[in-house]
Amino acid sequence: MKLQLAKGVKDTDPEDKIVRQEVGDTLRKVFELYGYAPLETPILERYDVLSAKYAGGSEILKETFKLKDQGSRDLALRYDLTVPFCRYVGMNPNLKMPFKRYQIGRVFRDGPIKLGRYREFWQCDIDAVGVKSMKIDAEFIGVFNEVFNRLGLKVVVKVNNRKILDAIMKKVGIKDPGQAILVMDKMEKIGVSGVKRELKELKLKDKQIDEILRLFSVSGTNKAKVKFLREELGECCGLDEIEEVMKYTSSFVFDVSLARGLAYYTGTIYEVFLKKGAIKSSLASGGRYDNLVGGFLGSGSYPALGISFGLSVISDVLKSGRKTNTKVYVIPIKTDCSSIVKELRSKGVNTDVDYSSRGISKNLNYANSLGIPFVLFVGAQELKKGKFKLKDMESGKESYLSLSSIVKKVL
Amino acid sequence: MKLQLAKGVKDTDPEDKIVRQEVGDTLRKVFELYGYAPLETPILERYDVLSAKYAGGSEILKETFKLKDQGSRDLALRYDLTVPFCRYVGMNPNLKMPFKRYQIGRVFRDGPIKLGRYREFWQCDIDAVGVKSMKIDAEFIGVFNEVFNRLGLKVVVKVNNRKILDAIMKKVGIKDPGQAILVMDKMEKIGVSGVKRELKELKLKDKQIDEILRLFSVSGTNKAKVKFLREELGECCGLDEIEEVMKYTSSFVFDVSLARGLAYYTGTIYEVFLKKGAIKSSLASGGRYDNLVGGFLGSGSYPALGISFGLSVISDVLKSGRKTNTKVYVIPIKTDCSSIVKELRSKGVNTDVDYSSRGISKNLNYANSLGIPFVLFVGAQELKKGKFKLKDMESGKESYLSLSSIVKKVL
Repeated sequence: MKLQLAKGVKDTDPEDKIVRQEVGDTLRKVFELYGYAPLETPILERYDVLSAKYAGGSEILKETFKLKDQGSRDLALRYDLTVPFCRYVGMNPNLKMPFKRYQIGRVFRDGPIKLGRYREFWQCDIDAVGVKSMKIDAEFIGVFNEVFNRLGLKVVVKVNNRKILDAIMKKVGIKDPGQAILVMDKMEKIGVSGVKRELKELKLKDKQIDEILRLFSVSGTNKAKVKFLREELGECCGLDEIEEVMKYTSSFVFDVSLARGLAYYTGTIYEVFLKKGAIKSSLASGGRYDNLVGGFLGSGSYPALGISFGLSVISDVLKSGRKTNTKVYVIPIKTDCSSIVKELRSKGVNTDVDYSSRGISKNLNYANSLGIPFVLFVGAQELKKGKFKLKDMESGKESYLSLSSIVKKVL
Repeated sequence: MKLQLAKGVKDTDPEDKIVRQEVGDTLRKVFELYGYAPLETPILERYDVLSAKYAGGSEILKETFKLKDQGSRDLALRYDLTVPFCRYVGMNPNLKMPFKRYQIGRVFRDGPIKLGRYREFWQCDIDAVGVKSMKIDAEFIGVFNEVFNRLGLKVVVKVNNRKILDAIMKKVGIKDPGQAILVMDKMEKIGVSGVKRELKELKLKDKQIDEILRLFSVSGTNKAKVKFLREELGECCGLDEIEEVMKYTSSFVFDVSLARGLAYYTGTIYEVFLKKGAIKSSLASGGRYDNLVGGFLGSGSYPALGISFGLSVISDVLKSGRKTNTKVYVIPIKTDCSSIVKELRSKGVNTDVDYSSRGISKNLNYANSLGIPFVLFVGAQELKKGKFKLKDMESGKESYLSLSSIVKKVL
């Protein structure tokens, strides 16, 4: 048998897993800071739940992994965390509203393999159900900014409102705006000429296309954009909502060209990008979906918002290069160093030690290849004197230090 | 469509998920303290890998969830973290030895549903491959004790060695000791009479059964037990190994009746139990499996040990009753309290706030049902004075405090 991975999945080495864990920890901390509670739904769901009307839709069902249990029940691996969240809300009618939850978990899509796209990947979501006020739309902008500040990434949080897009398309005389909005969403990818071509393919007239492009080209401050569109569109609920969000926060860019693919968004939509750098895809995104939960459950009104952070793409940007969390590697020299190892660990120093009595150069090579920053030599003399040789593996510098000084230095 | 969970899985509510996360954090911290690196293998594996000889064996394959991807490849959901670990070692021949890794992840078994047994559950494993020395067998005892100390659980770490069991069975004249060992493992469950009955069913003679029971009834200190068995068994590699472990640590109980079901263990075996309390099942277990990795890979010598912590059972013991990590719920009284909420969060206080302008009693009910420990009332007067009414939800006590005093009180 040849050892192979399943197609479209990968192992995450310690070096990459360390970054992912740090990003995950930051997300968790911020989510809890903003009052979101952790929830865990299973990876296995009933297929009829995941394929229900108002759930993922036909595109995503094509990519859903199906399987049966021993009782021949039709199951599937979840393709997102939102549909299971809706199921949870539906199955727990006594849940107090608003319900704000976060979930960090793996989802599965049996789709085509592209660079950076895997069949198994992490989603990190917060969702809030039961709040109508635009204050929560502003809170989500706060969460975005808090997360990326803490991660040390300079980002721009782009915000739009689906109702504005609908109003623009209506003004231009397009009855079914969905397709045209999806084309406008590609502006950054395919440019003005590409957008023109694709809108033509949708049978839009030249005059309509020019008008759409004129309205979308609005620039200036958020306020200036709202003013311009207000003059063009008149009464517009989407503009009212954006203006209300602007009352609560200014930490975003109102970008009327932002569309977000998914059809289920009803109001505010978000997408977060790096300010500079090679990575053009979004690091996080989401929006308000006031009809989804109620539609999925078949009844009830559940105003809701959700956003999702891309753990892989964020981790790829951050790539620390750190291969280990171990701080000190102890090399015993013909002696028992267990008391020293024990002491270091009791002080909170992540410590590894040679148990195989290897030679010094082999041990140094090992510590070096693992990327452990410090090596400590422990011989009988050192134990007697209470001073030990600590080698800084990056600079090569060696110093003789007491254990308490070593702890201070390496932590 | 009726909303239902798949059979044999469950949602983990915030209350339970909070405990699981705390246990997971403690495990991660201790694993890193001892020099283990995080690794993540996929949940989807090729079926031929999981069903290979030396992998899980026929019992576990019966409980393996199988599925196909769009290319009709045979896949399966992993049933443990050990076989994927072996695959990883085999696919990375340049891995530096020893390789010490930890993994916390979900595994899947399509087995019968029992109380507390689910088809999808967490395993928290550390494994070390490439160390022959019994020092690492002692290190694992250190990990057990460190973890349960930090969790505040009083446990007993029981240790035995498969080679001692084999030697006892050999002395008694049993050629194929596997079945008899499995019966002895049930001593706590079925008692002496049950063990006698089952050994009889294996066609053992009364004399053999009496002799086994006599040898297994050894009591006293670890040293006394070794001495007794040494006199009975003579040369015994397993006793040598236990004695070596005893040189490095005394934080365990040598228990010759400990057997561990799995056939692949070759030396030291562990099982951790609560000292007191209703839960009789083990909280963690594992052992040395020197032939497994090499056998699985088809060649090579890979001395190895692994242990696994039961996240569910440990969390059930710890059940904190805490339903939220939110510390303060802010109730705005006809005013904008966003600056206060922002300030609390910036000081690291997990804070939630009413966005729906509900009445005070509705808000208090909400905070109470969520288990949030403090409620803060913010009105125009309070904002002006810089002092706010903080209500301790457990005692019912109210006090007027400045924001900095509030932060101190609730953190």
